[in-house]
Amino acid sequence: MPVSADNLTAKGLRSRAKIVDAAARLVLANGAHGATMEAIQQEAGVSASQLYHYFDNKRDLLAAVIQASTEVVLANKWLRDMRSLADLRAWRDAVVDAARETGCRTGCPLASFVEDIPDTDPDLLDLAAAGLRRLTSVVTDALTTMRAAGELRADADVHRLALVIVTAYEGGMLVSRAQRDPAPLEAALDAAVAGVLAHAPSEEPRAAPSG
Amino acid sequence: MPVSADNLTAKGLRSRAKIVDAAARLVLANGAHGATMEAIQQEAGVSASQLYHYFDNKRDLLAAVIQASTEVVLANKWLRDMRSLADLRAWRDAVVDAARETGCRTGCPLASFVEDIPDTDPDLLDLAAAGLRRLTSVVTDALTTMRAAGELRADADVHRLALVIVTAYEGGMLVSRAQRDPAPLEAALDAAVAGVLAHAPSEEPRAAPSG
Repeated sequence: MPVSADNLTAKGLRSRAKIVDAAARLVLANGAHGATMEAIQQEAGVSASQLYHYFDNKRDLLAAVIQASTEVVLANKWLRDMRSLADLRAWRDAVVDAARETGCRTGCPLASFVEDIPDTDPDLLDLAAAGLRRLTSVVTDALTTMRAAGELRADADVHRLALVIVTAYEGGMLVSRAQRDPAPLEAALDAAVAGVLAHAPSEEPRAAPSG
Repeated sequence: MPVSADNLTAKGLRSRAKIVDAAARLVLANGAHGATMEAIQQEAGVSASQLYHYFDNKRDLLAAVIQASTEVVLANKWLRDMRSLADLRAWRDAVVDAARETGCRTGCPLASFVEDIPDTDPDLLDLAAAGLRRLTSVVTDALTTMRAAGELRADADVHRLALVIVTAYEGGMLVSRAQRDPAPLEAALDAAVAGVLAHAPSEEPRAAPSG
């Protein structure tokens, strides 16, 4: 019977985290199915008995990886610091720069799970969905702050705008990853940011040419 | 040595297509790694020797599935018929309706491959990327037709707008699939369509052809 994370010593927590990190790396590179327990064990540098001390089976380990991946996605500094339209643009630049630096080799870890989890395991899919919901919720909060500060109009549907940003991020990452080219990601994020800016209070009633 | 598709009889082509279809269904449900050769054989209702008559190994079969999936994506009637902004809206509605009908259970088959193919197999990833490029190219052609007809301004960057549409589609499908909820897909596609409409000649002549 594997031990619950709640009952671990500091050393145990570190060992468990090492295994989850190794599993996350392999899942990101090879998909959830491609990452075998054996490969994860090797990548983490632990014995099989250590691995199974912490996780009953691969499914439990995948659940831990999805939860850890959610925290990684949400820990993004530009996302956490997003309070203004300028911050939104800074996040956009940071995402594109990061993609360029890695040659668009890494996708969103949550997306791997969505595409990779068998339909027969709705609980794991729910965990990935919950991660995406939390991401959307962080962006919604940021847009709510901008709206309260008057950067967005009072009638701006911040939840819907957050969905536009999150889907643009996911779709942009996915297509850029496939093509090893940051252009799709850039186009997606620029369009999403423009969609948000369209809800800024008009400087002037947006240049109606009729005079 | 498996036979090339070029040298097959009509019956052989049908058998091969049956295997590819079965593999495609399993990949869509369980990811590329989750679909084992044994499961594919069962799903297709063929013997192992038949399976290996057509495909040397799983990699060859996956390549065939990616190519077949590309054709499925491109065969979408609303995509093929897209010539006008009204057609673009009709495509948006058809995509959202289809997602709603299936309870958002199916994703874009090309996306499964992008998230699921090991980084160690760049050739398969290239096939998925080529599929996404063809999709982008079909949308670019449609937008070029709209621009030529005066529905979009002469300075509209149709390739970039096509990237916005394709990434919105992919990201929307992915998040909606995870959450079993069409709202993210709707928000993504509406924003992308609005992004295209922003390149229409001006706000005024949007009412009707002036005659």
